Amino acid sequence: MTVDYVARRARLAELLPAREVHALLVTSPVNVRYLTGLASSNAAVLVRADGTALLATDNRYIDVARTLDVPSTETYDVAERLAEPGVGIEAAWMSVATYRRLGEGLVPLEPVVELLRAVKDDGELELLRTACAITDQAFADVSGKIAPGVTERELARLLDHRMAELGADKPAFDTIVAAGENGAVPHHAPSDRELRAGDLVTMDFGARYQGYHADMTRTVCLGRPAGWQREIHELVAEAQRAGRHALAPGAGAAEVDAAARSVIEDAGHGEHFRHGLGHGVGLEIHEEPFLGPSRTGRLEDRVPITVEPGVYLPGRGGVRIEDTLVTREGGPELFTKTTKELLVL
Amino acid sequence: MTVDYVARRARLAELLPAREVHALLVTSPVNVRYLTGLASSNAAVLVRADGTALLATDNRYIDVARTLDVPSTETYDVAERLAEPGVGIEAAWMSVATYRRLGEGLVPLEPVVELLRAVKDDGELELLRTACAITDQAFADVSGKIAPGVTERELARLLDHRMAELGADKPAFDTIVAAGENGAVPHHAPSDRELRAGDLVTMDFGARYQGYHADMTRTVCLGRPAGWQREIHELVAEAQRAGRHALAPGAGAAEVDAAARSVIEDAGHGEHFRHGLGHGVGLEIHEEPFLGPSRTGRLEDRVPITVEPGVYLPGRGGVRIEDTLVTREGGPELFTKTTKELLVL
Repeated sequence: MTVDYVARRARLAELLPAREVHALLVTSPVNVRYLTGLASSNAAVLVRADGTALLATDNRYIDVARTLDVPSTETYDVAERLAEPGVGIEAAWMSVATYRRLGEGLVPLEPVVELLRAVKDDGELELLRTACAITDQAFADVSGKIAPGVTERELARLLDHRMAELGADKPAFDTIVAAGENGAVPHHAPSDRELRAGDLVTMDFGARYQGYHADMTRTVCLGRPAGWQREIHELVAEAQRAGRHALAPGAGAAEVDAAARSVIEDAGHGEHFRHGLGHGVGLEIHEEPFLGPSRTGRLEDRVPITVEPGVYLPGRGGVRIEDTLVTREGGPELFTKTTKELLVL
Repeated sequence: MTVDYVARRARLAELLPAREVHALLVTSPVNVRYLTGLASSNAAVLVRADGTALLATDNRYIDVARTLDVPSTETYDVAERLAEPGVGIEAAWMSVATYRRLGEGLVPLEPVVELLRAVKDDGELELLRTACAITDQAFADVSGKIAPGVTERELARLLDHRMAELGADKPAFDTIVAAGENGAVPHHAPSDRELRAGDLVTMDFGARYQGYHADMTRTVCLGRPAGWQREIHELVAEAQRAGRHALAPGAGAAEVDAAARSVIEDAGHGEHFRHGLGHGVGLEIHEEPFLGPSRTGRLEDRVPITVEPGVYLPGRGGVRIEDTLVTREGGPELFTKTTKELLVL
């Protein structure tokens, strides 16, 4: 994929005059990567309102930096090298210590690059499609091993390993496997608990591919589901469908959340679904926009996002169903294609 | 392992009066974990000079928080909930955006908890020993597969998978495998390049075990080493030995660095070793103290740290040898025990 980083920086440059700065000092590593192509743990780029830019990084990355289509300079103190009075800074990223060290005249700004990043170009969508295809395939390949006696940790490891074999950079985040009562904890860390007959088993995982993050959750049942298990799975599936159908360019972030949440609330389980409905994905696993009851803003076209309602019954178990999709005129495109039927294994 | 978090908070409390604050608002996730036992992506703890504390986290983690030996409160805006005038903040961790939102009266402080964390207790050392033992074992188990035709990515994946099988939480950092000319790039990301006869192959990897990070590097040779390959391996091994021997409670950080660096400089390769000699390890893969030419400060007793000199010849290849050790009176204890002879595979 050829990425036009010059064009990305030009789009950023256009946003600066309205923020009353003549340049933005970008210090978020992900934003530096987005604007220059340099993946590193220590780099900054100054993007000026005229579209020119200067990249700073240290000797570990300077050789790569010099191959990019942006002038670069070598230093360890990347923010110091590029800071100058009147320059905007990323207030959500720069630490108080760095800000105080750089001295006067910097202008703390709300996120700017993140707004650009929310809307993906064709190349980014293709990378996300691949990340999600790897995720689907890993689930298909591992599903035969989801059985009583396997531990949560072992199952997580199988998914991670298969994603790597299929070409993932690494897992997009720490894989969640939650069996039985552990499924009531949305962010359960895989343990040595063995899967048992009768368990609902929730797997929340995804591949990172060339920097782009997939995110998918499925809950399966080991053996014939009890009535309550089938009931909450159907409820969550219905809520998830409603959330997906509400995804559209122009839709409000709270409105999409409500479309799914109201289904769960109407069934009397509102108190058992206490997290937001979803989040953008891209170079970060959680990025703008976010879907939740108090989120403002409206979706645009070409925004990859998750829809992931859940119902969690303390001490008993839970169900979460999550897809990664992208908003499109005419209806969202589904990136994670694994069935959302209740799989009985 | 039973950890006495109350004692840890008491040690922190003792440091606050000298910093002229009546409490510290701890927002670094790792520092929150160190002081309370809560591993999360959204928590803060206020530790007061009288040793009392209050932990804040959101609904994803509050149930776990309530099982800990510290009072807790549920909120998403964890820093906001705990901030009050006259309280110290971790300036290296808090963002400018949060700082400005919390308003007046907060006192930005240099790292405090990090100073406590540098010196490990017995339980921490035992976890690091285990993390390093997993790392050694993974290398031993995978070494038979280091052969021509295997790609850098495949080898990295084998190491990661074996560490997971042996009980690692996850890799301590993104595993580096660098073959042939790629070995000249200290932070090379594994690629699809196949290993070839005659390559030096550098592997820099480690296990994270119960939150604690191991770090080890070995460079092997595929087939009989050429003269220059044997020469730089011997040089790096000698420098690494000198660095390890200089590790002692009371030694200066720059002095330890110089012990190793001077060996490489004396051989005329000073320009080919451009990174610091090592870094502390613990709940983070890179933490205080750091060893380098311009680092100040002295080592204490019971400080786990890496010693990792390298020689990198652009276009040809490189060698790095790295151990994780802990400073002790009478000489450091070696945690990573894999041989440092040049392995010819």
